[in-house]
Amino acid sequence: MRSVNLILLESGEVDAQGRVVLSDQRAAHLRDVLRAAPGGSVRCGVVDGPQGLARIETVSESQVVLQCVLDQEAPPAPRVDLLLALPRPKVMNRLWAQLAAMGVDRIILTNAWKVERVYFDTHVLREDHYRPLLLEGLQQAQDTRLPRVTIHRQFRKLVEDELATLSPGSRRLLADSPAGQRFSDLARSADSERVLLAVGPEGGWTDFERRLLMEHGFTQVSMGARTLRSDTACIALLSLVHECVLGLREPA
Amino acid sequence: MRSVNLILLESGEVDAQGRVVLSDQRAAHLRDVLRAAPGGSVRCGVVDGPQGLARIETVSESQVVLQCVLDQEAPPAPRVDLLLALPRPKVMNRLWAQLAAMGVDRIILTNAWKVERVYFDTHVLREDHYRPLLLEGLQQAQDTRLPRVTIHRQFRKLVEDELATLSPGSRRLLADSPAGQRFSDLARSADSERVLLAVGPEGGWTDFERRLLMEHGFTQVSMGARTLRSDTACIALLSLVHECVLGLREPA
Repeated sequence: MRSVNLILLESGEVDAQGRVVLSDQRAAHLRDVLRAAPGGSVRCGVVDGPQGLARIETVSESQVVLQCVLDQEAPPAPRVDLLLALPRPKVMNRLWAQLAAMGVDRIILTNAWKVERVYFDTHVLREDHYRPLLLEGLQQAQDTRLPRVTIHRQFRKLVEDELATLSPGSRRLLADSPAGQRFSDLARSADSERVLLAVGPEGGWTDFERRLLMEHGFTQVSMGARTLRSDTACIALLSLVHECVLGLREPA
Repeated sequence: MRSVNLILLESGEVDAQGRVVLSDQRAAHLRDVLRAAPGGSVRCGVVDGPQGLARIETVSESQVVLQCVLDQEAPPAPRVDLLLALPRPKVMNRLWAQLAAMGVDRIILTNAWKVERVYFDTHVLREDHYRPLLLEGLQQAQDTRLPRVTIHRQFRKLVEDELATLSPGSRRLLADSPAGQRFSDLARSADSERVLLAVGPEGGWTDFERRLLMEHGFTQVSMGARTLRSDTACIALLSLVHECVLGLREPA
């Protein structure tokens, strides 16, 4: 289980002939960790775009030049969206790369009664902070589909007015208590169906919040009696959604 | 999803009348985070022992006194053991609490061709470092069963001579490549059956290592094509073992 299994490129970095000149930490990683040498090759992909192979043309102290053949279509976006009550910054920070690696289409971060307001004001939620972490997760998992992130300070408005647009037609699952239906007993989803998974804050949803979610189509699912930290819970639950509900290995 | 859902006590800390005097970070947590006040109560448990409720007797700057009624038997130990090729120290460090929270009986750390030897010489593998992290995970998950940790520098000797004693009679699963059987297609285990789950190093097992494992009863299982970091993979795989193979929520 390597760290970089695919070199991610921005679409503007690849010229019309498929040539890319890298001079940032990707170049350093190719040179120092993957020991790339001219004539070798490495998997590459364009953010939200196709994948393929890159031949290493030249390697120097300052840059690496790649010649890419991007002949595989962009993988389908994962069919799961995550509605997550914003965890404390340290936990959220750990989650970015792991969520991208597990495969999530939308990351919908929300306020809740038990979320501290200051959590919204940290650099952890700045796009220039989290985007590189998401890319790191994609490079780990060999995916090119960048999760789409939105941040919502009004839980009720989100649930009542915005969720239907953000995650249209999704099967809505609320992982909340040991009382819900077991994942392994859930019906497998149809091929085109999406899942919207809601994960609560430390301390749980309030009764009001839980009721609001259930009035808006969420059904309770459970993975047992153990109470997990938000980041552990997200990883464990996403693996169950992919395996027990979607039954697909994305990207295929 | 709180941080401390059960206060863990060492057996020597509870006197014959069930009284406990805390003056370490558990006292600080009770006082400052849980806002414990005399007359209140909190879940408590003894490491590898029973659980129950503790009434808060007194709270001061320097200590908290509890009166425990430990009337619930120790939960059964989780029926899954983890054979893990030692990840780099930063990743291993993040794993301790999460493994304890997910529920693992034995954590069997091993060398492998692609494990760097220096990983074995860090403080991360010292019991005085990892034990508090394991306890933190148990307190999160409300469990009292401390995972048992062993560290093995000789992979072949471990597989050939020691695994049968460490994890006797277990169903042996090797999570290695997208080629294995899907978790959701695996037969559910009998009630008393144990699982031994093997998770490889960054870069994967070598052919020799994979063959050795398979010659010793491991069968390949898969959770898809995405390559995950060791810590993400362990959490995702353990949730699948608990849900799809054991079908038990431990502690029940």
